[in-house]
Amino acid sequence: MILRNIFIFLLFTGTLTLKAQEEDALYIKKIYDHTLTKSTCYEDLRALTEVGGRLAGSKAYDDAVDLTKAQMERMGFDTVYLQPCDVMGWERKSEVVKYDDVDGEPLSATALGNSIGTGPVGFSAEVIEVQSLEEVKKLGKEGVAGKIVFYNRPMDPTQIRTFNAYGGAVDQRVYGAARAAEYGAVAAVVRSMTLRYDDYPHTGTMAYKDGIKKIPSLALSTMASDQLSQRLKEGSVKLYIQNECSPTELKQTHSVIGEIKGSQYPDEIIVVGGHLDAWDIGNGAHDDGAGCVQSMQVLQTLADLDYQPKRTIRVVLFANEENGLAGGRKYAKVSNENEEYHMAALESDSGGFSPRGFSFDGHADVLEKHYKKVYEWLPLFESLGLTFKLGGSGSDIGPLKSQKGILIGLRPDSQRYFDYHHTSIDNFEAVNKRELELGAAAMTALIYMLDKYGL
Amino acid sequence: MILRNIFIFLLFTGTLTLKAQEEDALYIKKIYDHTLTKSTCYEDLRALTEVGGRLAGSKAYDDAVDLTKAQMERMGFDTVYLQPCDVMGWERKSEVVKYDDVDGEPLSATALGNSIGTGPVGFSAEVIEVQSLEEVKKLGKEGVAGKIVFYNRPMDPTQIRTFNAYGGAVDQRVYGAARAAEYGAVAAVVRSMTLRYDDYPHTGTMAYKDGIKKIPSLALSTMASDQLSQRLKEGSVKLYIQNECSPTELKQTHSVIGEIKGSQYPDEIIVVGGHLDAWDIGNGAHDDGAGCVQSMQVLQTLADLDYQPKRTIRVVLFANEENGLAGGRKYAKVSNENEEYHMAALESDSGGFSPRGFSFDGHADVLEKHYKKVYEWLPLFESLGLTFKLGGSGSDIGPLKSQKGILIGLRPDSQRYFDYHHTSIDNFEAVNKRELELGAAAMTALIYMLDKYGL
Repeated sequence: MILRNIFIFLLFTGTLTLKAQEEDALYIKKIYDHTLTKSTCYEDLRALTEVGGRLAGSKAYDDAVDLTKAQMERMGFDTVYLQPCDVMGWERKSEVVKYDDVDGEPLSATALGNSIGTGPVGFSAEVIEVQSLEEVKKLGKEGVAGKIVFYNRPMDPTQIRTFNAYGGAVDQRVYGAARAAEYGAVAAVVRSMTLRYDDYPHTGTMAYKDGIKKIPSLALSTMASDQLSQRLKEGSVKLYIQNECSPTELKQTHSVIGEIKGSQYPDEIIVVGGHLDAWDIGNGAHDDGAGCVQSMQVLQTLADLDYQPKRTIRVVLFANEENGLAGGRKYAKVSNENEEYHMAALESDSGGFSPRGFSFDGHADVLEKHYKKVYEWLPLFESLGLTFKLGGSGSDIGPLKSQKGILIGLRPDSQRYFDYHHTSIDNFEAVNKRELELGAAAMTALIYMLDKYGL
Repeated sequence: MILRNIFIFLLFTGTLTLKAQEEDALYIKKIYDHTLTKSTCYEDLRALTEVGGRLAGSKAYDDAVDLTKAQMERMGFDTVYLQPCDVMGWERKSEVVKYDDVDGEPLSATALGNSIGTGPVGFSAEVIEVQSLEEVKKLGKEGVAGKIVFYNRPMDPTQIRTFNAYGGAVDQRVYGAARAAEYGAVAAVVRSMTLRYDDYPHTGTMAYKDGIKKIPSLALSTMASDQLSQRLKEGSVKLYIQNECSPTELKQTHSVIGEIKGSQYPDEIIVVGGHLDAWDIGNGAHDDGAGCVQSMQVLQTLADLDYQPKRTIRVVLFANEENGLAGGRKYAKVSNENEEYHMAALESDSGGFSPRGFSFDGHADVLEKHYKKVYEWLPLFESLGLTFKLGGSGSDIGPLKSQKGILIGLRPDSQRYFDYHHTSIDNFEAVNKRELELGAAAMTALIYMLDKYGL
């Protein structure tokens, strides 16, 4: 059979003996069995999501720091500590978007993170619909000044992987307001970043441009966007916007770190992590509570199985991924100052869905060499329904690239991720226990192989 | 890179030229784009689930026949017709299971399909918990007579594929009552076939044994099962059961068939299908409304793209999979009588979840040859995130094995299937639009390759 031929082919390309592969398969089976029957990650996620929306800089975020630090201490790591970093917080108070006509029908809307508000009075303005940043430039001041620019290019449904569809549309959310303001617009509203047709608005980060006036920027649900677009086809439309939201002062907050020291190569560090912060309107269950509790579960499972790591394994729950990346940047900065070497870093930040595999990235000098090594392990992972691919890891671990280890992302099934992403329904109930656990087990299996064989 | 090496390796084992592969990849991209933007399967499923629980022999089932026949006629197939088959229906009226004590607390329970009821008065009896059919035999008459046997062996959570866990536990549901009755038990209750801990009971088929007294048989939710088990640890427990359900008379019903005649090889038939019947307590969205609407979408998509099949492609929505398989058996019988050759049959009956690939089965004389052929197409499907495996297809197409074509099952992600299977929550809302569409697109791609190249 062809399958068998491929297996033999792979064996001859690798350096692992059949016996070692069998031993590894058995150990990985132990990891899976333990995670699927005795893990605490699902209940840990329940506790974490009960803290509420936890944007870095908020009281809820600090509560999440206390909670996860206590969870790690319960798990019996060698060391648990907090790493400080400075973040610019942001908070919303009120938000109203409605048609400025006799009916005054409201639209489902939510301010984008980092946006300013309109102040207590609000304002009305005519809406102009565009499909891209480029179109605003073409329309120029005469087309845009004094208006509300409505970015309505949908995510591309023909992209099988939804992250590609997101990548192809999110420029409107991040840069839309700055571009509109450049040509004199008074506000920007953007179609929510989702492939689903529903009435939940999706928040997310946006960025102003130095020297350009800041204008309010909000997301509309896809249903509200389609309805607004339809009304614009019938004639001119004015929207009334009133919202209050603003940056808070620069504040010290923390990433949470736990580690087990390596017995043979303590200076070769393996990081596994996610980001602890989450948008304020939901409870950050998939983004990224799942990644946090899975990462803690990796070390918990290895400890429960009395596995003695050869290398130093560290769990890092990063601060401020959503609106600044201060946690990831600070972690890499301190690590570089201490002349550490991160042999590998694995992030789970694509939701707690059924795992499909891993993606691998790294510095151009070393990526092929590293990938060739981990690729030898593929048959073990294929038998678990997992595949490997090149390209992509995680935002928080990206700054570690200069240390020339391997950077890895867990790849869960992506189909439902943007149904919940940055919404009020990214809650505990949206996460399936087994899917979360299978992700944690897959991560533990890979960390085990990395620790055992190195790169 | 190793990936590239494998690709080249596969190319040399196959007979498809690179140019043909590129053409196929482009056509499959068209299929996906069409399905993800213009398919009607999601709305067709909404309509089908609105019919309600549609056990073969019921009024709702006949409504579903009328509805799907009309849907197919709308789609412009060459022929749409009904194929009669005789089914033994079954219906439930009332069901009560409660603790026979002063509190009389109810337990979430539902009769198993084909079970008899207790009659209007009901009865109480002491409960004995067992883990297997074997244990009942060991306990014998002295341990079991006059009692309610409670089968409580859970599905094994360490099975990564949930269908394997189901296969390892479902003997209790199917044969539990017959075994218990053999030793004089008055009823059997069984832990629901799910890995989830919740309060929904899961129905499903059960079978009596000739010459053995029929006793009532019901499923308890996993929460009710754990609670009952706990109470049994504390002392003896009596349950009161009252329910009414019974077989209905033998009745003619129908499978629904639509086809497009092949232009070059009309005698080589390719079937794509699912089963139209569903358990009465839910709306059969995942099981198997999804498979029905996906199968219709395959032919709809090919028609929309003006694809002219070389071979005859037939959509079959089979009757009575859940409690008799009369539709599948009749279809094969008529086909054999007409000396037809089914070159391939593809069934979708594992839920409308994100597709992971296909499984292939067939007669021992031809399976390796057939599988070797389709395996040449794997690179095309791997690029869509799909894998191939040997073994398993679908219940309704199984009777076609003797025609020595290839039998194929769509393999969606299995993690959430048994959260909904045979319950009151197997409803339209449980199905994700994109996941359903991706399954339909994957099926269409495979049918396209089968039609274009044959076996």
